[in-house]
Formats: sequence, C-alpha cells, structure tokens
Amino acid sequence: MKISMYQASAPRFANMLRNLSTLLDKGQAHCEARKIDPAVMGGMRLIADMFPLSRQVQVACDTAKGAVARLAGVDIPKHEDTEQTFAELKQRIAKTIDFILSVPAEKIDGSEDRQVTLRLGGREVAFTGIQYLLGFAYPNFYFHVTTAYDILRANGVDLGKRDYIGTP
Amino acid sequence: MKISMYQASAPRFANMLRNLSTLLDKGQAHCEARKIDPAVMGGMRLIADMFPLSRQVQVACDTAKGAVARLAGVDIPKHEDTEQTFAELKQRIAKTIDFILSVPAEKIDGSEDRQVTLRLGGREVAFTGIQYLLGFAYPNFYFHVTTAYDILRANGVDLGKRDYIGTP
Repeated sequence: MKISMYQASAPRFANMLRNLSTLLDKGQAHCEARKIDPAVMGGMRLIADMFPLSRQVQVACDTAKGAVARLAGVDIPKHEDTEQTFAELKQRIAKTIDFILSVPAEKIDGSEDRQVTLRLGGREVAFTGIQYLLGFAYPNFYFHVTTAYDILRANGVDLGKRDYIGTP
Repeated sequence: MKISMYQASAPRFANMLRNLSTLLDKGQAHCEARKIDPAVMGGMRLIADMFPLSRQVQVACDTAKGAVARLAGVDIPKHEDTEQTFAELKQRIAKTIDFILSVPAEKIDGSEDRQVTLRLGGREVAFTGIQYLLGFAYPNFYFHVTTAYDILRANGVDLGKRDYIGTP
C-alpha cells in the first residue's frame, strides 16, 4: 500500500498545527496567571537574531499551507502577518488548518514526481514532490513548531512532550 | 508509486543526522575560537528542566535508530550515553547512521500496518507502522534535532537554516 502523498502531508500538518494551538493555550494561561502581556510573550526570542514566538507560529503555518498548495498545484492563500495576541495566533492556525483540509486528497496524491520550484536565497531550486515534502517542508515545519515550543518552555510555560506529540 | 516506508525513514533520518553533525562542527569551532570548554557547551540547556545539548543529540539518535529498528522488526542496538565532547557526539551520530543504513530496505518496506508497541508513561501504546513513523518518530526526531540547533544558536553559534536543512 505504501504512504500516499496526501497521508504524508495535509492530515499530518493539520495534526501538528492543532498541537501547536494547544501549546498556545498553555502559553496564554501562563500569561494570564502571571499577568504577562501576551504581546510580550509573543515577542520572546531565544536570541536577538532569531524570530520571536509569534513569527515562529506564522512561519509554521506558512510552511504547512505552502507545502499543501504546492503539492496540489493550487494557489497559496495569502495570510497577512498581523497577529498580536494568542487568540489571533490561534485564529491564524485555525484558518491554516481549514485551508489545508479543504484541498481534496486526489489533488495531492500523485504529486511524488511533480516539480516544485522555490526561490531560495535568490535562486530557483527545483525539487520533486517527495523530496520537497520529506526533505524541505517537513524539517522546516517541525523546526518552527519546535522552536515555538522551546520559546514557551524557556519562558516557564508548563509544557510537556505529550502536548507537542498530541494524538499520533 | 507513492512513498515507500523505507524512503520515508532510513535515508531521511540519516540525512538529518548528517546535518546535525555539521551543526556540531560549527559548535565545536565556536568553542575553540572562544576557548569554551566543549563539556560546558554540551551541558547547556534552554531552561533547567530541559535536556542539555548532549542529551538532545543522544535522543535524536535513539529516536532514529529506534524507528528504523522497530519498523524493520530487528533489535535496537544499544548505545551507551557516555559522550562528553563534540568528537564523541559526532561519533555517536556516525554509528547511528551506520546502523540505520545497514538495515535492508526490504525489511522496512511493507511495515505500513505492522504493529509497533511502545511503553509510554508506564503503559503500552500500539501504533500502526505509518502512524508510528509519521505521528510519533518524526515529530520526536525533529524536536530533538531542532532543540539541539536552538541551544547552539541561543549560545551564539553562527548557524543558519541552510545548515539544518542541508541537501534535501
């Protein structure tokens, strides 16, 4: 049977994005309990020249919707990066999940060898669908979800691996 | 054609582990340039109750070798957690890659529905092979590789996304 391109993409991204939303719920509860301005937490970074929490969430969302759209060969919906609060970041995640799950499986299945071209560091890079999904979209996506987790954890939010893994 | 279980596992883990080794090279160069004891860098954590860098590397290795062994139905090789230096951590990665790539593709292919049982939080949890690989092994693996990156980056090591992504 093997793994279909759909199985390996849309539902997997949606699942982890739901977990990311749960991480933000815990971040919000932490801020409320300690009277921390949510915009301060959203602006926290591991070091000055890395993206803050809010941007990690936005890029995780963009990586997931970009991957699903490119594999399906449909336009990538544009989401403005205006989120300031936990509620807005969760809304960003929710609309990303809605888009991802709106793409029919049959548009993504069969994209193994479809050429995906990205502009990276000023030049065009061409991948096959499999290579793009497994070697580029996945590691990027997990990078930003994990770094969002790490920022929250490093700032004292009571998160555990179970929140990140959710229901596999 | 779809994605085979082998394609989605062994070569992908090996690829990211090679990138992790490159991240450690840059960490080592940083320590040498600034006269930082490598054991101090290996002991750095994002917060007191998270694993230090050295343990993040060990767990990334263990997640990859555990996934490949469980899907293939072979014994998981035991690697003692004794690494203290960058050279030793890179050796740990190298022997993990050697094991991963020693498992024949045909042992992993066809494991989509193979039952994988893990002991998690004191109870047995059963997954199908696909669910285990995509929903448990991947997010865990990327979690520890990314957190290793985040610890090095947060301590001033000059890393970029390109080092993490490598050659997809």
